[in-house]
Amino acid sequence: MNTLEHTYLYQEIHEQPQVLRNTLAREAQVIKDLAGVINQQDISQVVIAARGTSDNVGRYAKYLLGAANGFSVGLAAPSLFTIYNRKPRLKNALVLGISQSGQSPDIIAVLQDARQQGALTVSITNDTHSPLAEVAAYTVDMNAGPEKSVAATKTYTASLLAVAMLSTALNGSQQQWDELAAIPQAVSQTLELDAAALEAAARWRFADRCVVIGRGFNYATAFELALKLKELTYIVAEPYSPADLLHGPFAIVERDFPVLLIAPRGAMLPNINRLLEELHQAGADSLIISDDPATLALGDARLALPWSVPEWLSPITAIIAGQLFALRLTATKKLNIDQPRGLHKVTRTH
Amino acid sequence: MNTLEHTYLYQEIHEQPQVLRNTLAREAQVIKDLAGVINQQDISQVVIAARGTSDNVGRYAKYLLGAANGFSVGLAAPSLFTIYNRKPRLKNALVLGISQSGQSPDIIAVLQDARQQGALTVSITNDTHSPLAEVAAYTVDMNAGPEKSVAATKTYTASLLAVAMLSTALNGSQQQWDELAAIPQAVSQTLELDAAALEAAARWRFADRCVVIGRGFNYATAFELALKLKELTYIVAEPYSPADLLHGPFAIVERDFPVLLIAPRGAMLPNINRLLEELHQAGADSLIISDDPATLALGDARLALPWSVPEWLSPITAIIAGQLFALRLTATKKLNIDQPRGLHKVTRTH
Repeated sequence: MNTLEHTYLYQEIHEQPQVLRNTLAREAQVIKDLAGVINQQDISQVVIAARGTSDNVGRYAKYLLGAANGFSVGLAAPSLFTIYNRKPRLKNALVLGISQSGQSPDIIAVLQDARQQGALTVSITNDTHSPLAEVAAYTVDMNAGPEKSVAATKTYTASLLAVAMLSTALNGSQQQWDELAAIPQAVSQTLELDAAALEAAARWRFADRCVVIGRGFNYATAFELALKLKELTYIVAEPYSPADLLHGPFAIVERDFPVLLIAPRGAMLPNINRLLEELHQAGADSLIISDDPATLALGDARLALPWSVPEWLSPITAIIAGQLFALRLTATKKLNIDQPRGLHKVTRTH
Repeated sequence: MNTLEHTYLYQEIHEQPQVLRNTLAREAQVIKDLAGVINQQDISQVVIAARGTSDNVGRYAKYLLGAANGFSVGLAAPSLFTIYNRKPRLKNALVLGISQSGQSPDIIAVLQDARQQGALTVSITNDTHSPLAEVAAYTVDMNAGPEKSVAATKTYTASLLAVAMLSTALNGSQQQWDELAAIPQAVSQTLELDAAALEAAARWRFADRCVVIGRGFNYATAFELALKLKELTYIVAEPYSPADLLHGPFAIVERDFPVLLIAPRGAMLPNINRLLEELHQAGADSLIISDDPATLALGDARLALPWSVPEWLSPITAIIAGQLFALRLTATKKLNIDQPRGLHKVTRTH
């Protein structure tokens, strides 16, 4: 009998504290070496090549390496390399390829060309023998072990952690290393949200469209949670920052429109709260992921993060709450948890 | 009586040939001057700050300035400047702010900071006396005249044209200037798709979710058409490249799921056609915008572009077909054409 607890997805979600401990312990040295090389070079920009869940890691890197390290970070357009065969200049760039399998030809092509141009190439992957790892000058291992569920969970948080470690190694701040060391424990605590996730899932049983709101560091969380909802529950979930939503898409929000808000404490919270007010005026039904009691009280439903972490690390705990919600909603909707329709674990795009 | 032909949106869609003629004639000199400055400097990257429709112009610029001019182009994260107050290094960058109104504080803040850092700043705006124009070293005028409909149309194509002119001026190719000169006529011809748009709109009367597919130069078109559909018809429309769709979101595609494909002739067409096959296998219902008869024949419904332009300029004609479809679908759904719910013409975000 395939009970929920026996699904790969459930198990992989719950493996995350151990995976993160492994990444912290095993990758610190290579990341410090890499940071030393970066700090010696005249790197003017960071370019990230990734797809799907890994692209959302790229969104986190864009904000963190921008805010904490002053890099201008862009997401690559792989089709320039693979279809138009016209290659942007990347000589003074750090080019970062992120891929669980390390197999997607378009991502490999970007790294290959970047290396030929003399750029510093780095891969973050769960397979250190993959073609992506082979083409990169430096490789960070996700240390997640085999990921068998089609919907990625542990490789996402391991990759977020790797990016956060790189940012910290570049700054050399001991306080940040201490904050990183507390993350596996914070994730363990956050996994206790499972009962609340089940309750929230019951409310969303018949949702078939929604928007997911996050900004700044948690812009990535909005994209990743929207992707989990699409992959697992087939809800057409649109991710937005408040600013992006207000510049047009807000029109889709009607009475009873379901909205999910990623709203942990930090500099971004007032911005999210102002939007929440406008959403409620439009009649939206809100589900809030937050560790701020006042914000949680404003929601129609809530997942109260039981453990507060600094805002720059909050994407790691916030997505745990989102993963549990997506898992429980998939079960509530009686859908296939480990093998969503139309998807394969390794996707090779050109 | 407010018949369709008397709406601002209808009129502004039909003003586009003249607007584009004006932009071609009046902005060529400032764009050539700007290209001269760019070619003299050691510009290593282009950073674009924009929201909503203008952000989709940024997506076009990312591909065109990458493919034709070798620039690595990134979209800025304005919240780094306005909320986290941590500013990425932009010294050797060309920083391009795009905004119809030139009023949004977050976009102005990015340009302001870039200029202080010594970056080359450029604005593309419909108000050359706006705060955005004042802060930029160079300003390109959209020449669109007042845009009164909340949903932007003529300012979008004028901005695309400005970007295409900049790319051409940087290369100095007479062939490209000739191709640009033919665009107003191509747009005039494309406006004759109105009857076909009405027919396609009837088929989509009850659609409430969809995906819009485009890649490469027309990745921008997918985003812009999805935005028009959300603003005007309240359809939850998700834009994707084929590669992005396959890395997860494909799961939402079920029997009868409406899919809109931007598929003009060019290097990207085989990639789009392969996806179309997979979409049909999943039971999707397709509406195709193309000038390729074989591709059009594969669709369940179609908007046959009557005039072929080179692929790098096809986003300008492809979105005309999309605008007509969105207009006709809004009328078919009996919704407000010029004043969608919840939106204002000028959106000021921080």
